[in-house]
Amino acid sequence: MKISVILAHPNKKSFNHAIAEAALNTLQEKGHDIYFHDLYEENFDPILPIEEISKDAPLPHQIKNYCDELTESDGIIIIHPNWWGQPPAILKGWIDRVIRPGIAYGFLEGDKGEGIPDGLLKGKAVLVFNTSNTPEEREEKVFGDPLETLWKNCIFGLCGVEKFYRKMFRIIIISSEEQRRKWLQEVTDAVSRFFPKYYISHENHEQK
Amino acid sequence: MKISVILAHPNKKSFNHAIAEAALNTLQEKGHDIYFHDLYEENFDPILPIEEISKDAPLPHQIKNYCDELTESDGIIIIHPNWWGQPPAILKGWIDRVIRPGIAYGFLEGDKGEGIPDGLLKGKAVLVFNTSNTPEEREEKVFGDPLETLWKNCIFGLCGVEKFYRKMFRIIIISSEEQRRKWLQEVTDAVSRFFPKYYISHENHEQK
Repeated sequence: MKISVILAHPNKKSFNHAIAEAALNTLQEKGHDIYFHDLYEENFDPILPIEEISKDAPLPHQIKNYCDELTESDGIIIIHPNWWGQPPAILKGWIDRVIRPGIAYGFLEGDKGEGIPDGLLKGKAVLVFNTSNTPEEREEKVFGDPLETLWKNCIFGLCGVEKFYRKMFRIIIISSEEQRRKWLQEVTDAVSRFFPKYYISHENHEQK
Repeated sequence: MKISVILAHPNKKSFNHAIAEAALNTLQEKGHDIYFHDLYEENFDPILPIEEISKDAPLPHQIKNYCDELTESDGIIIIHPNWWGQPPAILKGWIDRVIRPGIAYGFLEGDKGEGIPDGLLKGKAVLVFNTSNTPEEREEKVFGDPLETLWKNCIFGLCGVEKFYRKMFRIIIISSEEQRRKWLQEVTDAVSRFFPKYYISHENHEQK
């Protein structure tokens, strides 16, 4: 399988980077092809310019590449901290520029853009791993855990994704080494469950 | 009064720009001091670097300026389209970089960052104007209107703001000229209501 892994955290020593490492190791061990993007490392430009808004807009090479990878991927893994109930701006920009019309969703004929879009990411599986310093009770009662509806409904639900799993690890800032090890095991387990070893090759459908 | 107006839309002919113009005209007519930022026009850099994360980090001049304005403002008006239940990345970056510790919120002594922060924007009034192409029923039932909890609870509620008003204008893409005129009147009315004519000057508390 082809799996995209998108990471957004400015600190290379962060637990987000540890999550990414665990996910990448697991995917590699299972023999998957990986598209990995550490958006901070790549200095991704998150600003959607007016020229890219229309469905048929010509795209910069880098953005077209991201779009092609999204289309080709059987699975997508997103990793980021909870910043104000939302992803960091750099990842919001990846959403704005890559989850675009014609790639992730389309509109039915005659629809000007106000109707229900047609999801073009059907069949893909999505895993989202988040980190947070907000206690669970406060997250649920005061904030309503907006990251759940943002990723599950607003973004991937709209694009036709049905196989969705999200896990928020908390409270990071006061977590012990042992707790973090257990969390990374959870990452490994979830990635293994969603993307098990792939015996059928893409090219010839013979067993490896 | 001093009012900050923050606008995030890439198209100068957008209804978002018309909202900003109506808000600015009203504020001017009422005699307020205005800090206006069209983030796209300013080419605002939305990426929070690791060096800016700690409370006492030295800030680039531009970011310090945004922070000082936020502190000085009696009111804040935010204008942006609904992109995936969230603001555009450029505005998410303004949140990430300007709504920062020591400016918008603080932590109580002994708290490592996992507790309930102390809001430092108490007493300020906030208006948020959004545009959307999603029908109201679908927004409420399928997506849960995340922009409401993001701005009201996750961001400004956490920072101590109690006087909060938000209005989502929809469906923009099929709206008539007449409808838009009425919406702009709503903007003018809301701005006038929250920021009425100010007779007491800041300096000497004498009537102008």
